[in-house]
Amino acid sequence: MRIDIITVLPELLKSPFEASILKRAIEKGLVEIYFHNLRDYVTDNYKQVDDYQYGGGAGMVMMIEPIDKCITKLKSERSYDEVIYMTPDGETLKQKTANFLSLKENLIILCGHYKGVDQRVRDHFVTKEISIGDYVLSGGELGAAVLCDTIIRLIPGVLGNESSALTDSFQDDLLAPPIYTRPAEYKGWKVPDILLSGNFPKIEIWREEEAYKRTKERRPDLLDE
Amino acid sequence: MRIDIITVLPELLKSPFEASILKRAIEKGLVEIYFHNLRDYVTDNYKQVDDYQYGGGAGMVMMIEPIDKCITKLKSERSYDEVIYMTPDGETLKQKTANFLSLKENLIILCGHYKGVDQRVRDHFVTKEISIGDYVLSGGELGAAVLCDTIIRLIPGVLGNESSALTDSFQDDLLAPPIYTRPAEYKGWKVPDILLSGNFPKIEIWREEEAYKRTKERRPDLLDE
Repeated sequence: MRIDIITVLPELLKSPFEASILKRAIEKGLVEIYFHNLRDYVTDNYKQVDDYQYGGGAGMVMMIEPIDKCITKLKSERSYDEVIYMTPDGETLKQKTANFLSLKENLIILCGHYKGVDQRVRDHFVTKEISIGDYVLSGGELGAAVLCDTIIRLIPGVLGNESSALTDSFQDDLLAPPIYTRPAEYKGWKVPDILLSGNFPKIEIWREEEAYKRTKERRPDLLDE
Repeated sequence: MRIDIITVLPELLKSPFEASILKRAIEKGLVEIYFHNLRDYVTDNYKQVDDYQYGGGAGMVMMIEPIDKCITKLKSERSYDEVIYMTPDGETLKQKTANFLSLKENLIILCGHYKGVDQRVRDHFVTKEISIGDYVLSGGELGAAVLCDTIIRLIPGVLGNESSALTDSFQDDLLAPPIYTRPAEYKGWKVPDILLSGNFPKIEIWREEEAYKRTKERRPDLLDE
């Protein structure tokens, strides 16, 4: 998989891709990530990528021309499955979307910043708008990092043990059950006996019950789906 | 405001706090951010912070002792409003939570990694569990960065123009209306005439109508609230 990220702040995005699972996925050649600085696609001397909004109001708007130039150049080099725009009014990211996108070949992710991009970018270049949640961020960069993380960890070979991703929350519309590790007792707080019993079929049943109980308490909406 | 972030991967978190709005907020002294590497709170030579789960199964679990030591040390130095654990089965982050947390003095954010933390950490140390959305990440670090960004940008003085945050999506349960900037025409694609009219009362009405229309189309659930 190849992901091209278009941003005015490539430096903000650096460290999440240089650590842990994303780093390993890149090193193993399972994914290629390219950052494109929009300022490299500006022709004027001020490297201006944003301007005041028409009609007045606070907040700057990212201009269409540098974005057009960047996307058009990328598309001239290969075909893309999606041009994704990170925006709080996009489709809310769910695990299913991550599963779907993890099967794609080439993705472009456009990060909004300031107040957002000129609407004409969304009308003419973007194929999918994604929000990572109902809250506002300073820009789309963290959203892009989150989206990449959710997608990339699903690519076969990225996680050391593939079965781990399948037992995560949301993959089966249930939250994960409680987990424990050593020591069996810490300051008087004990691990549930069942987990120490060695009776694996019973442990499986206990985990399913706990997962269901936790989901019912915390997220009954997931059970309705 | 002071935020202490406890993590096994402080290097992953670096760049988001060294760029843009978070960087400026730190430089202005409006927020202090401290990273705490859990490995510094481990006594054995292997710097082991995680171990296998009791009862078997894929994925490592973060041990209680280093987390206890780190949180206990921080709490001995000052009092904290919340000890937040980033986890996909926590309360889903909404703008209201960000607004609420932006008024606090001292916060601890604990990042899960691997499969998560020992349940006893959640039972005895954590006061609030937050999920940034219904998807699974490699760890809580990106979630912590997202949470910090949503909170910190609301602190007065952080954004250049405070009125900008108030017109963002979700602050009034409406998505933001379309925005445009120069040029007024690009490849035949025009900015709506109303925005060029200079009639600001009419522009306000247009924006409200568009915000309502977009919300109704994309997120009717927000209108029900």
